[in-house]
Amino acid sequence: MRETLIIERIRQLAQDFTGDKTVIRGIGDDCAILRPRAHEDLVFTSDFVLEGRHFTLDTHKPADIGHKALARSLSDLAAMGAEPVFCLVSLAIPASLSGSTWITGFYKGLLALAKEYRVILAGGDLARFEKVVVDVTCCGRVPRGTALLRSGAKPGDRIYVTGELGGSAHGFETRKGKHWKRHLRPEPRIAAGIALRKAGISAAMDLSDGLSLDLARLCKESRTGAEISSNRLPLASGASIHHALHGGEDYELLFTAPPKLKIRLPVTEIGVITKQHPGKILLDGASLLSKGFDHFS
Amino acid sequence: MRETLIIERIRQLAQDFTGDKTVIRGIGDDCAILRPRAHEDLVFTSDFVLEGRHFTLDTHKPADIGHKALARSLSDLAAMGAEPVFCLVSLAIPASLSGSTWITGFYKGLLALAKEYRVILAGGDLARFEKVVVDVTCCGRVPRGTALLRSGAKPGDRIYVTGELGGSAHGFETRKGKHWKRHLRPEPRIAAGIALRKAGISAAMDLSDGLSLDLARLCKESRTGAEISSNRLPLASGASIHHALHGGEDYELLFTAPPKLKIRLPVTEIGVITKQHPGKILLDGASLLSKGFDHFS
Repeated sequence: MRETLIIERIRQLAQDFTGDKTVIRGIGDDCAILRPRAHEDLVFTSDFVLEGRHFTLDTHKPADIGHKALARSLSDLAAMGAEPVFCLVSLAIPASLSGSTWITGFYKGLLALAKEYRVILAGGDLARFEKVVVDVTCCGRVPRGTALLRSGAKPGDRIYVTGELGGSAHGFETRKGKHWKRHLRPEPRIAAGIALRKAGISAAMDLSDGLSLDLARLCKESRTGAEISSNRLPLASGASIHHALHGGEDYELLFTAPPKLKIRLPVTEIGVITKQHPGKILLDGASLLSKGFDHFS
Repeated sequence: MRETLIIERIRQLAQDFTGDKTVIRGIGDDCAILRPRAHEDLVFTSDFVLEGRHFTLDTHKPADIGHKALARSLSDLAAMGAEPVFCLVSLAIPASLSGSTWITGFYKGLLALAKEYRVILAGGDLARFEKVVVDVTCCGRVPRGTALLRSGAKPGDRIYVTGELGGSAHGFETRKGKHWKRHLRPEPRIAAGIALRKAGISAAMDLSDGLSLDLARLCKESRTGAEISSNRLPLASGASIHHALHGGEDYELLFTAPPKLKIRLPVTEIGVITKQHPGKILLDGASLLSKGFDHFS
């Protein structure tokens, strides 16, 4: 298809859902326009999903790729305790995929998730390239001054995670069953993020690159250490401790809260924030190396 | 370098300039945070800059690529008459460029332009990939309800452009002189966009894919036609009519205004908006085909 026709098609698909009245202009102009509400902060994140790194064309259907691209960004909104508002989707594809089937599949997967979380597809970019490249920017909102940060953890705070760990890495190895499906279609923890923000927890982030690396990042931003116990980790069925510690893409929330704070969600306490060297993590009393996903290591 | 070190380096570079107080959290958390001002609309755009399509590593220095990546997005803000606020930069690079020289060059080029237009680098993504891929999201602000749209042109409105046309396409062919430099380092027309918004023009967009294609897009959104004269086009020195009509990446502003509106900027009137079929353009009385840059034609 010609670019103009592709954009017209995307615009039609996007118009099936136009929920939020604060996005006053979407696809079709040089920019999307948002009219902010009073007393809110807006949060923004961008995340790549790249062929050969986050997916392959033979294992992932176009709808899986669309889902995953949006889910990765929404997971960052969840980590801030934000309610999703809109997304911008930059998509580059080879000429061989520029017929309507692949593109429609991609946007249908993305928009199904967008509809579920009331995210408006407000714009983006489209280009031809040798490989499939997606970069999704998401905007979310929180009441002013309430966004969850990585930097709020204090020594003595308890460390928690939502859900189970290691499922995505395990699914990636076995390529079958519910964990593979989970790897293909991760669910952003938007509702949990909003509930935790309202509960008044001290710090949060999402688990995209593995607990060992992500917990170290949270601790560095908070200038604390942490101590966790392997026997407390909520392992997904079939997943190993290694999967849970170093496997990426679980997209669960990692957070901290003062010991007295009651958390009324199904979460698991896995350890405690310490006064040690910023970013230093102990597992069962011994130093834990961050073996999570580092793009350039 | 390891990813953590690269991000630390980018964060240091970005901190050299922290102008706008409304960006209350930048690099270092899951999301950037913006505290909107009262009575403003926010505008958002994302643009790719891709190796082999928008640049090559042997013709473009890393600083050129950083400059161009931000300039493309800022040009979209200019088209809305917006004042820049912040950007998110998603960068994917091959392992061979992950040493500090290339990355530092890229961000220095990008941040020099960011400083000029008071844009904060508030976040983004970093990944390894076979080729260099950049996607820059920019956020700008306008007083509520004043953003310039593509859809505001009315029959009888005069059509104008800022600056000269065809220079970038000419420079791309000759690879030398001021037009090549202009191709490498396009200047977003931020000041002109703000002035035109205040002047009360009827429609605007930026010229990124060539006048013939971009004017047709503006007309389609406004549900009008247009008639332009070849002898009125402000040709860059050495550029042909073909360059001016169909060459991309001039990043000048194309806009329309009622005939009585006085434009106190150095602009050129090139034609008039008509009642013809939406998107139909006449050049010197004959139909003009849109031969501008279409990624998938």
